[in-house]
Amino acid sequence: MRALVLTEFGLKLDANYPQPEPKPGEALLRLRMAGVCGTDLALMAGYKGGYRGVLGHEYVADVAAAPGNEDWVGRRVVGEINTMCGKCEHCRRGLTTHCLHRRVLGIERWDGVFADYFLSPLANLHPIPDDLPDEIAVFTEPTAAAYAALRDAPPDAGDRIVVFGDGRLGQLIAQAFRAEGFNPLLVGHHEQKLAVAARLGIRTARATPPDEEFDLAVDATGRPAALSQVLGVLRPRGTLILKSTSAQPAHLDTAAIVVHEIKIIGSRCGPFPQAIAALASGKVDPRPLIHEIFALDEAPTALRKAAEPGVLKVLIRP
Amino acid sequence: MRALVLTEFGLKLDANYPQPEPKPGEALLRLRMAGVCGTDLALMAGYKGGYRGVLGHEYVADVAAAPGNEDWVGRRVVGEINTMCGKCEHCRRGLTTHCLHRRVLGIERWDGVFADYFLSPLANLHPIPDDLPDEIAVFTEPTAAAYAALRDAPPDAGDRIVVFGDGRLGQLIAQAFRAEGFNPLLVGHHEQKLAVAARLGIRTARATPPDEEFDLAVDATGRPAALSQVLGVLRPRGTLILKSTSAQPAHLDTAAIVVHEIKIIGSRCGPFPQAIAALASGKVDPRPLIHEIFALDEAPTALRKAAEPGVLKVLIRP
Repeated sequence: MRALVLTEFGLKLDANYPQPEPKPGEALLRLRMAGVCGTDLALMAGYKGGYRGVLGHEYVADVAAAPGNEDWVGRRVVGEINTMCGKCEHCRRGLTTHCLHRRVLGIERWDGVFADYFLSPLANLHPIPDDLPDEIAVFTEPTAAAYAALRDAPPDAGDRIVVFGDGRLGQLIAQAFRAEGFNPLLVGHHEQKLAVAARLGIRTARATPPDEEFDLAVDATGRPAALSQVLGVLRPRGTLILKSTSAQPAHLDTAAIVVHEIKIIGSRCGPFPQAIAALASGKVDPRPLIHEIFALDEAPTALRKAAEPGVLKVLIRP
Repeated sequence: MRALVLTEFGLKLDANYPQPEPKPGEALLRLRMAGVCGTDLALMAGYKGGYRGVLGHEYVADVAAAPGNEDWVGRRVVGEINTMCGKCEHCRRGLTTHCLHRRVLGIERWDGVFADYFLSPLANLHPIPDDLPDEIAVFTEPTAAAYAALRDAPPDAGDRIVVFGDGRLGQLIAQAFRAEGFNPLLVGHHEQKLAVAARLGIRTARATPPDEEFDLAVDATGRPAALSQVLGVLRPRGTLILKSTSAQPAHLDTAAIVVHEIKIIGSRCGPFPQAIAALASGKVDPRPLIHEIFALDEAPTALRKAAEPGVLKVLIRP
């Protein structure tokens, strides 16, 4: 089968990658559509200290096989990306997405989804409504990550919210806040990307107004250097939600965090059911984010395209 | 009157500092006892960009005058340190300790307490029980700061708690957690300081056990460089309470905060009534922390002493 593999020599589109074999409790999935995420690009740049294997973790797929669970075969699904052992200390404490032995699709010791076929634990799969198109359903994983911000720091009605970063994730986070009744300000540097959000009715700006304070700020810039600026717009006892993962450390003025009694919350994966509902209802509409859809044979080009400034979502179909 | 003043040329014990005049709503306070805090030492080192004025903010005092509120005269009090205007946006939102025009006793644009007399807004004062000795009552402000950790991130029963930093504040934080029914581990590098805590029945160590994870960690090291280590002992979705103020920025691995979904809470001033109750009941016993009591005439020596390694609390009496 075909697979886009990250090797020690870089990206390689392998036409003869071995098709994986599902074990009991797993599904063999046939790709319908995949999304390119900033994390894919970060992995290519060395994040996580050198992931090697098939890239990709945002997908919608058909279940091609599920040994011992044949009722799953033929279902169209999206899937969570962390595997869990169910036995370690974290799993026993309910922190299953932090399993001590976890593998992560396309990120850590588990082949990803930029391929004709791939595996997933059945427990990670969520069937999706028949009338939800692939090009919307493929946004479930990043939309869930966006909803994690709301789950991890539920705002109060009327809270002044700012999202820094007009990229893929920042756009979805702003949409999620808006979908749930808030009026976030999306701050970014790319005119075209801000225009995408503005057309959906989201307030946008190239910077926060001077002297305006926010109750909640989300950092989705991907640049640790932006953190001081993000911290600077919060009111005392305000909350900063960190969504950016970067290989670079940030230099933080910890005294300011103490003196202003700021709360910082690291936020990663989110609730799939809520994301599916938001996408199915149209409350979150990711279609304006789609820049281009590439065939799997062109996957290396797709990833290069996703890394270009001004480009939002790049999708890959078999 | 006598006052210990931080000038552009350093510390100066001024025998002829002008005695301040209370305005309506203020009290003129006669010092009974004051405590030297790490912040005093940080201010001498340039923290806050150059405070100039009388140092000191931990005190117990007698009300010598209170124009228009003569019923206060003669009361023995402790006092909160942030002044507030009551009118700015922060005050109107209830964030009075973050008043936009606030002054802070001995820290920011308000003369401090290492003097025969000083001023405080009446609203900041708390009368104390007659049988609470000065050398215990003087610990109210730092004990309140310790209780802020419990207020800002209330632990669950059975939570595994570690306090980093065996200094003045770390000791009181460990005592506060213990007083409220938890069993914190105090981690530090000074044998004598750890022994003080151990004699009070607090678990101590020079490092956390390898592979042991904590639900809650408090950083009271005063060294931003320690933060990575502190973050490293937390379980996923654990909480880090930041108590250290330092002029040095910290280098933080923000990706680790995101991936492990850590919560970081900056924590500063705390609840005086709870601190007074804990000290009055004996649940928190600061007396073993007292290293030496100096007369105000020896205040420069007292501050030098407080900066020595291994020294916990230095007190000053008139």
